[in-house]
Amino acid sequence: MRNFKITIQYDGTNYHGWQIQSNGRSVQGEITRALSILDHRPVTVYGAGRTDAGVHAEAQVANFFVERDFESWLLRDAINGNLDRDIRVLKVEPVSDGFNARYSATQKTYRYRIWTGDVISPFVYRYVHHFRGKLNIEEMQRAAATLIGRHDFTAFTVSSSDAEDHVRMLVRVDIEQEANEISIIVSGDGFLRYMVRTIAGTLIEVGRGKRTPASVAATLESLDRGNAGPSAPAHGLTLVRVDY
Amino acid sequence: MRNFKITIQYDGTNYHGWQIQSNGRSVQGEITRALSILDHRPVTVYGAGRTDAGVHAEAQVANFFVERDFESWLLRDAINGNLDRDIRVLKVEPVSDGFNARYSATQKTYRYRIWTGDVISPFVYRYVHHFRGKLNIEEMQRAAATLIGRHDFTAFTVSSSDAEDHVRMLVRVDIEQEANEISIIVSGDGFLRYMVRTIAGTLIEVGRGKRTPASVAATLESLDRGNAGPSAPAHGLTLVRVDY
Repeated sequence: MRNFKITIQYDGTNYHGWQIQSNGRSVQGEITRALSILDHRPVTVYGAGRTDAGVHAEAQVANFFVERDFESWLLRDAINGNLDRDIRVLKVEPVSDGFNARYSATQKTYRYRIWTGDVISPFVYRYVHHFRGKLNIEEMQRAAATLIGRHDFTAFTVSSSDAEDHVRMLVRVDIEQEANEISIIVSGDGFLRYMVRTIAGTLIEVGRGKRTPASVAATLESLDRGNAGPSAPAHGLTLVRVDY
Repeated sequence: MRNFKITIQYDGTNYHGWQIQSNGRSVQGEITRALSILDHRPVTVYGAGRTDAGVHAEAQVANFFVERDFESWLLRDAINGNLDRDIRVLKVEPVSDGFNARYSATQKTYRYRIWTGDVISPFVYRYVHHFRGKLNIEEMQRAAATLIGRHDFTAFTVSSSDAEDHVRMLVRVDIEQEANEISIIVSGDGFLRYMVRTIAGTLIEVGRGKRTPASVAATLESLDRGNAGPSAPAHGLTLVRVDY
């Protein structure tokens, strides 16, 4: 059995998220299906992290063990040959048996894209949340800074989160603006369910003047999900990279 | 009656081209439908030029006359409200009665995108032609230069072209490369049916070493469609801008 690491790009629009579902197509399900065809046996695919329905990935990472002897590039092309074009394996690399896409990951980076112009381009509407209006970037940056560091993010996840420990370390929460698009870029050692989308929804409220940067810090301390803003829509979110 | 100029962006993937069809959805058909609802009468939409099925537009231009009194921004939003998100009106401007999107145009610019990497991104596959291999950019540039100027482009259109005069003036045929993507950018006073796609297909053959720059000049002079390369696929082509 040989262990392979794969880097995957996907447009999440037509998928019920990363995780295998009993009903509905998922990215993990599609890759599992392709690999099981190629290895003539059921292959288990381990992802770096789940992405919700509609969320995209520039570079999701996964690993799996196969019995047959594949060359990396041939395996990449063979998997892609069994996938729709909205999922692509960019890279396949042999790794040591100890590598696990989830547990070996040291950092993940997400980008939440907000389109503030009047009209959304047909070429980007699938990947951005449309907020038609002005957002105060400086205030959003001030609020974002209060989230950096090691904190209990209970106020920014769902109450049904199955993680026992809600403490995560954020090393970066940046607000970037380019023309009509604002991006919230978040890097950390791990993320709770809906965490990035709830941070995005809360920072949008700050940008609109509906809440202050100080209130975001207070929300974090409160450990009460009721104090945070709404979760921003899934389709604005992209998993940008996973570091090892 | 007031004359309006509109600038339109579309992802052509799901349309049978610009021109109204008796069967199948077209971009002109969708805009005509939206405007006829708003003006309570059949509105005629004049486009700057037809784009084939699957071809995209960054900024197609059209004009139309309406009876009702609309504010430009309100008209833009009202049209968009009646269209799917893969067609967007970016701008609506009142113009003098003499303005005609087709006859007033002085120049059009198209971009043909070629992806030469092994794997195509899920985010761009709809907009690029996948040519997996090396293309010799310098040779393509030399061949492109022979097409610049006023020529009879009979060899680069379809025999069924209904244009009587095949003489067109090309002011720009550039080859640009950025990482794994090569673009052919063409500007001229007008284009025959399939002309840009046939130029692209022929230049790709030059890039592959299947023909020389000199043979492209000879093809142009021959006025024989049989001498040019195949038309490159529609989905790699985008109408970038129309000048007035």
